[in-house]
Amino acid sequence: MAEQEGPGRVPVVGMVGAGQLARMTAQAAVSLGIGFRVLAAAADESAATVCAGTVIGDYRSGADLRAFAAGCDVLTFDHEHVPGALLAGLEEAGAAVRPSSLALRYAQDKRAMRERLAELGVPCPRFAPVRDAGEVARFAAEHGWPVVLKAVTGGYDGKGVWVCATLEAAAQVLAHGIDLIAEEHVALERELAVVVARSPSGQGAVYPVVETVQRDGICREVLAPAPGLAPGIAAAAQRLGLQLAAELGVVGILAVELFQTAAGLLVNELAMRPHNSGHWTIDGAVTSQFEQHLRAVLDLPLGAPMLAAPRVVMVNVLGGEDPDMYSRLLHVMAGDPGVKVHLYGKEVRPGRKVGHVTVAGSDLDAIRGRARRAASWLSSGTEED
Amino acid sequence: MAEQEGPGRVPVVGMVGAGQLARMTAQAAVSLGIGFRVLAAAADESAATVCAGTVIGDYRSGADLRAFAAGCDVLTFDHEHVPGALLAGLEEAGAAVRPSSLALRYAQDKRAMRERLAELGVPCPRFAPVRDAGEVARFAAEHGWPVVLKAVTGGYDGKGVWVCATLEAAAQVLAHGIDLIAEEHVALERELAVVVARSPSGQGAVYPVVETVQRDGICREVLAPAPGLAPGIAAAAQRLGLQLAAELGVVGILAVELFQTAAGLLVNELAMRPHNSGHWTIDGAVTSQFEQHLRAVLDLPLGAPMLAAPRVVMVNVLGGEDPDMYSRLLHVMAGDPGVKVHLYGKEVRPGRKVGHVTVAGSDLDAIRGRARRAASWLSSGTEED
Repeated sequence: MAEQEGPGRVPVVGMVGAGQLARMTAQAAVSLGIGFRVLAAAADESAATVCAGTVIGDYRSGADLRAFAAGCDVLTFDHEHVPGALLAGLEEAGAAVRPSSLALRYAQDKRAMRERLAELGVPCPRFAPVRDAGEVARFAAEHGWPVVLKAVTGGYDGKGVWVCATLEAAAQVLAHGIDLIAEEHVALERELAVVVARSPSGQGAVYPVVETVQRDGICREVLAPAPGLAPGIAAAAQRLGLQLAAELGVVGILAVELFQTAAGLLVNELAMRPHNSGHWTIDGAVTSQFEQHLRAVLDLPLGAPMLAAPRVVMVNVLGGEDPDMYSRLLHVMAGDPGVKVHLYGKEVRPGRKVGHVTVAGSDLDAIRGRARRAASWLSSGTEED
Repeated sequence: MAEQEGPGRVPVVGMVGAGQLARMTAQAAVSLGIGFRVLAAAADESAATVCAGTVIGDYRSGADLRAFAAGCDVLTFDHEHVPGALLAGLEEAGAAVRPSSLALRYAQDKRAMRERLAELGVPCPRFAPVRDAGEVARFAAEHGWPVVLKAVTGGYDGKGVWVCATLEAAAQVLAHGIDLIAEEHVALERELAVVVARSPSGQGAVYPVVETVQRDGICREVLAPAPGLAPGIAAAAQRLGLQLAAELGVVGILAVELFQTAAGLLVNELAMRPHNSGHWTIDGAVTSQFEQHLRAVLDLPLGAPMLAAPRVVMVNVLGGEDPDMYSRLLHVMAGDPGVKVHLYGKEVRPGRKVGHVTVAGSDLDAIRGRARRAASWLSSGTEED
């Protein structure tokens, strides 16, 4: 529990991790007038450079986590990397860990997630744990090539998903010696995402279903709402999100990444934190996902998740070769006074997510073009990347 | 100049003062990815509790100001109280003071402001400097009672404006021994405000004209755009705002408080900083006045000032008897998931501005009612205050 007491006391939310998700959550916390702290590995991390309540520590250290939790009323996360045993220890010591270690397991362990979703009858790509080339070959014989290999937890060298066209490619992944599952390579029409929030008292709120556009395994664009999505499929996706949040006992934001296929929706991934597919909500929804996450973990009533404009497009800004993004900001602002720029204060490295831009309006092609141009200029100083 | 150098370097804006205006400017600075610091008198001030770049110091101390300026590329202000001689000293030493000491004088010295506006031919209430009861009596003989006395700079006991119905009341104000001007008491229809931004390179941007509703000398509500305002008067007010910003050499936000009278618009007050009449822009305009102020003082191109909804109402939250505002937040959020709450993290004292709420929509009566109810609940736990 936080130290200050008395009638005007406000609760303190502590977020483990200090990346851009914590940074944008800190920004939302300002309006709510609550206390907000981040546990950062270093003082130059994205959230640490803006948040007054920065504590330096290691999320893999039980002692650091306990000390951080002692100053907070509620503990939450900007990533899934805190070991489950440490989370359970904090819960046993009485900390309010939201989402709980039991729920977070399904965002930390892809095999556990797949098995639980199968139990719940939720449509997923077909999968199997694989330990060696023989098991991959058997999986491929049944489901065809390519085979998608996924690290059960974490990954290797920053990567956690490998699309393997051959057994040789799969063998290279197996050689890393990490736990893997194999998944069928789904013939998808496009990717969708649904972001929901759930509070400890069970209230749910669901954002409009969005289309996410990936390139080289990185989310590049989010279109809200998903263009041309049949109302029945949108409603099914929203129901699925709310159902999963309730069944898995999630508190806070749950993002469900979906494959849209001819046969229906399949669940690809789950994240239990504010998610890239919800960044558009800062400028495009009545309540941003960051404020919503704070409301949820504090068990405050959830905010209206409706669109604040007919259509909203978010495009990620990836680092380019030239780190001097600020001087390019001038051109973007002069070229389009209506684009909303969000920079994360991170060191610019090629391919790294260092910001995003959002444009709201009615004409999808027009706002998408504007958002793409702005993001591309920020990345590289060119119109199209 | 700030210390960090190199190709990825971003500028640092330093804001003198750490009240709610600095707090909301800090929040806007997060998205721009710039450096932001506040000069706070104490660590528990509104902006100091959220901003990582808080420096403790005294804005009346030349040494403290110089030390603060040394860490910043641009210096700006959340209040008008920094003595002009200190500002001029900073400018002589090479600091980028925005707005400049020359411009700020017209927000600091009401007599200088009135005289300059008269030179410019800008319509104002009739006024005269007054030093004693005889001069007040002569002013009243010409312009009638009540007479409005205004402190030329600062004020007395937190007050700077006195509406005096009699010479006896005026004598009590004169007894404080501060410099005063007398102004005619204008028969006004309502109060309006226009918020403009101007950059060092001369770009201007102007927000829609709003109606401001005062009670007991405190701004209570802002209606954007001003309901039923004739387009010609709105355009005249916007032109006046842009003209004043240019003529006075303002850099950053200029808020012009106006009286609407049967005979036309009169300028009441000027503020050269983000202003209460622009708080609605956080949730209701494409670019908030706080981001706009930062863009302007950094000489970045200005953002679109358009409304993001047909109508927006902002109502200030004043402190009530019970300081436990957080527990009332629950009721407000449950009662209206679409209201945007902004709390300033200030100690709750009766009558003190401790937050504001904003509601956007199409039906003025409906959104005004919702915003009033939310603000009233936060203040006092009752429907109407």
